[in-house]
Formats: sequence, structure tokens, C-alpha cells
Amino acid sequence: MNTSFSQWQNRVQAQAELVLNHFLPPDTQSPELLHQAMRYATLGGGKRLRAMLVVAAAETAAFNQTALSQAIAAVEMIHAYSLIHDDLPCMDDDDLRRGKPSCHKAFGEAQALLAGDALQTLAFAVLSQENDLPPQQRLRSLHTLATASGSLGMVGGQSIDLSAVGHFPDLSSLENMHRLKTGALICASVKLGVLACYSPDETILCQLDCYAKNLGLAFQVVDDILDTQADSAVLGKTAGKDAQNNKPTFVSLMGIEKAQNYANDLCEQAIALVQDLPRNSEILTAMARFVCQRHC
Amino acid sequence: MNTSFSQWQNRVQAQAELVLNHFLPPDTQSPELLHQAMRYATLGGGKRLRAMLVVAAAETAAFNQTALSQAIAAVEMIHAYSLIHDDLPCMDDDDLRRGKPSCHKAFGEAQALLAGDALQTLAFAVLSQENDLPPQQRLRSLHTLATASGSLGMVGGQSIDLSAVGHFPDLSSLENMHRLKTGALICASVKLGVLACYSPDETILCQLDCYAKNLGLAFQVVDDILDTQADSAVLGKTAGKDAQNNKPTFVSLMGIEKAQNYANDLCEQAIALVQDLPRNSEILTAMARFVCQRHC
Repeated sequence: MNTSFSQWQNRVQAQAELVLNHFLPPDTQSPELLHQAMRYATLGGGKRLRAMLVVAAAETAAFNQTALSQAIAAVEMIHAYSLIHDDLPCMDDDDLRRGKPSCHKAFGEAQALLAGDALQTLAFAVLSQENDLPPQQRLRSLHTLATASGSLGMVGGQSIDLSAVGHFPDLSSLENMHRLKTGALICASVKLGVLACYSPDETILCQLDCYAKNLGLAFQVVDDILDTQADSAVLGKTAGKDAQNNKPTFVSLMGIEKAQNYANDLCEQAIALVQDLPRNSEILTAMARFVCQRHC
Repeated sequence: MNTSFSQWQNRVQAQAELVLNHFLPPDTQSPELLHQAMRYATLGGGKRLRAMLVVAAAETAAFNQTALSQAIAAVEMIHAYSLIHDDLPCMDDDDLRRGKPSCHKAFGEAQALLAGDALQTLAFAVLSQENDLPPQQRLRSLHTLATASGSLGMVGGQSIDLSAVGHFPDLSSLENMHRLKTGALICASVKLGVLACYSPDETILCQLDCYAKNLGLAFQVVDDILDTQADSAVLGKTAGKDAQNNKPTFVSLMGIEKAQNYANDLCEQAIALVQDLPRNSEILTAMARFVCQRHC
């Protein structure tokens, strides 16, 4: 990984932590337990891939700092809420997340469920706060995030994923599921980044949407590979869950070698899409390589 | 109940059903199971109190029909999502809702959890769709709903309610919990109604907010009374749950007679607040009486 990307990544991760801390209610405020659970599940960890995508997309032009902070917080809150609910016993039943006990292990199922609910709400509350961008553009950000998170996006993908346990769909069904389950929010992240700019460029928005589609799929293919290879301590979540749960994965459908080649191809396609951007193509290129070459 | 209110109520209930049906994805659209669960939990029942409050508030002035439909759908979706999650085994563990098996009994816990999640998202997606009102005003509706639904509103109240099981707080703690748990969304309903008007009147907004605060509390006091008196078939949900769960209620703290007087007082205070409105004070008055005199 090159040094400048590594520095940029550290900066964005610190920025994500700061803005989340700013927008999350303090854990001394009532209801304390709920706010503690929300903060526990959101702060202090995670790759912040979605925050990085928001920032990288915004940096392709002149952006509004408040709008950028709101967008970072909103996508990371939606992501954190989805992880809390995903880990619940009635879903994936996972005890470990980001190297810590998952939220319901730490706070009980009921408060964890509510923490997830409230984090989703807070994402929309934050995104509907004031900033200096035109209201119509802010509404577009809100609608983009809501569409990507709901039954035709992330939650729809989770529903399909659950129904797929024990079944063996073809590659295109698996891709469609991931396009919704993780891809939709990853695409929304770059769109929200562009929409945090003073003059969002529709061509760049479209290019970055395609970039994010490839990146999101590559991310998932690598996730499936890591699930079979890494151990839980490195991943920060329980490894080997997919095989254990009899879940179809890119590895189970293609084998490891083909899956790795597929991830690389998707990564190169993503990179090709950002080569002619006026700004920030190095960071977007490095991020695509980071997604393909990560070990956790 | 007077005839004209009864007719108005029937009209609004039919309207709520229509707009929810319009904004909910068809259950033939993928993911089918999730969309079936969302529709099951939202359509075909409920008092539609929140929809009535939206419409009654909007009718105090000239309103935009699209904005009104969006507001009705959004508050009823938030309400339906909260009921799905409330009924889950890790929360109130209730098998019966609106006279039918609760959502997780019909669709399983995982799909029910996701249906609740997706209904919350859809509320914000619907409210961020286009209409002819100024974008700034639409952002205000979104922010109002998000603030009322989150950790400082409805979900916060649910968290406090859970922590209160087995404890016996004083009346003011109980009121504070209900002010958040049900009151916040009831207040948001009248605000969204006013914000669906072409020229929202800040004085009316403020008066209706106070009206809704009293009405929401009266609603809850009556709920506690009904829980001790009515049977499950009439209520459409499991009766006697509060005593069974050792939950503090207005009845356990005040006794039935004082609780009934308190509900009547709150109702009269609500009515007093809407007497001098230029329009629709009869409907708002009748609705307050309806809340106090309901039997289910």
C-alpha cells in the first residue's frame, strides 16, 4: 500500500470517528443504556470503507464540510445499525464484531435491537440537519440513502440472503443479492460524497456509481475468500460462518482461485472508471487495490 | 360519537389504507417475503390515530395533497415498524396484534425484524419524494419525523420502558417515558400535517403540538385502563400484559378511578387548545373525545 493512501486512510478514519462522536448523543444523556449501546456499536473500530468512499467522492470537486460530515456519519450509522441487527440471534447469531462482543452480547438483545433502530433514525436525522447546500440537493441525498437502505436495497439483500440459506443459487442470483445487501450502501456512499459538493457533476456521479458497483462486488468476493482463510482474531468477527451455515458464497460457487481472479478483474474495472477524473483518481485507485488486497 | 366525526374517521381510515397500499412495494416484487411481511404489518387494520392526526392538522389550512399522503404513509409506517419490533420475543414477546398473529408469528423473527427495518427506511424514502412544497419545508418534515422517532423520542421511550420492568417509578417518570414512547410520534403527526400546508402557521403548529401532547398522554392512560378491563378479542392484542410483566402503569400508580379522571382532564385540556382555531376545531374536539372514550 502506498504511503500517501495510507496517510489519507488514517486521516479519514480519524475524521469518521470524530464526526460520529459529534453526532451521537453522549452516553450520559438519557436513555443512557441505549446511547451507550449506540456508541459501542458505532465508535472505535471498523474499516470505515463507506466513510472513505464518501470522502474520496467528495474530494473530486469543491465540497461543503458540514454536508460531508453529515454524509460520513449517516452512511456509517446505517452500516453500524445493519451489523447490530445482522448479529442478533434470530439473524446470523454472531457473538463477535470488530474484535469485541457483538452489541447484543454486551447490552442484551432488546437494547441492541433498539440501538440499531435508533441508529437508522439518527442517520436520517443527521442528514436532514442544516447545511449551506441547496435544500433540493439535500433532499436528494436523503432520498438516495433511504432508497439504498430499504427493501429494494440493503435490507432487501439481507432478506434474500436469509431465504438463500441451504439453497444453491447461480452466480447471477448471488451477485444480485450482494448488489443489494452491501452494494447499494457502497454506491450510496459515493453518491452522497458527490452530493456534498457545491456543484455535483452528474457524469462523475455516474462514473463513481459504476466504480462503487465493481468495488462493492469485489469487496464481497474478498470477504468470502477471507471467511475461508483468515482466523476470527484477525477478522474481528467469527470466521468460517458461511460454510458452517451452509451459505452459498463466491468461493463455494467458483473455488478460491477463480474467486481471487474475479475480485482482481472487478478491481481493475473499477480503477479504469476513475482514471480520467480531474481530481482524486490516485486515491480512488489505491482504495480499489486496498479492497482487493485486504487481509481483514 | 357524532355522525360527522364517524364519517370523517371512516374516510381517513380508507385514505390511510389507500396511500399505504400505494407507497408499499407490491408483494409480487422481489424480495417477495419481505414485502409480504411489510404489507401484512401495515395494511388492513389499526385505529390509524396518527393518520387522523395528520389529516386533522392539515385541514386547519390549505394543504398539498401529495405532501399529505406522504405524511400519512410515513407516520403510519414508523408506527407499524415500532409495533413489529415491540412484539418480537426479545421485546414484549406478543403473539397477537390487530387481531391477527403478530408479524414474527406469521413470517418468522428474522423477516419480521427486517420488515420493521425496511418500513422505517420507507417512511423516510416516501417523505423525501417530490411534491410541490418548498424543499426547506419538506426537509423540516423529515427532520421532525426523524427526531420524534429516534433515541430522544419513540425508541428512547421504548428503551426506558424496558429498563423500567420490575421498577416502580413515580408518575412523572412514567409520564416522561410515555411522552417519548408514544407521545413523540403523536406530536410529530400533527406537525407533519401542518407542514403539509402551503403556508404552515407557526401558532397553529404550536397549539396543535400542545393538543397532541395532552391527547397522547390521555391515549396512554386509557390504554392502561383498557389493558386491565378489556379482553384480547376486543383489543386485538393480548390483554393483561402489563400486570403480567410487572410493568408500572397509570392504573397501578393511581388506581382506575383516578386514572379515568386524569384521562378526562387531559382530554378537556386538549379540547380547550383547539377551540379558537379558524378551521376544523370540531373534528379535533371529536377526536379527543374519541381517544378518551374508546373501548379498544
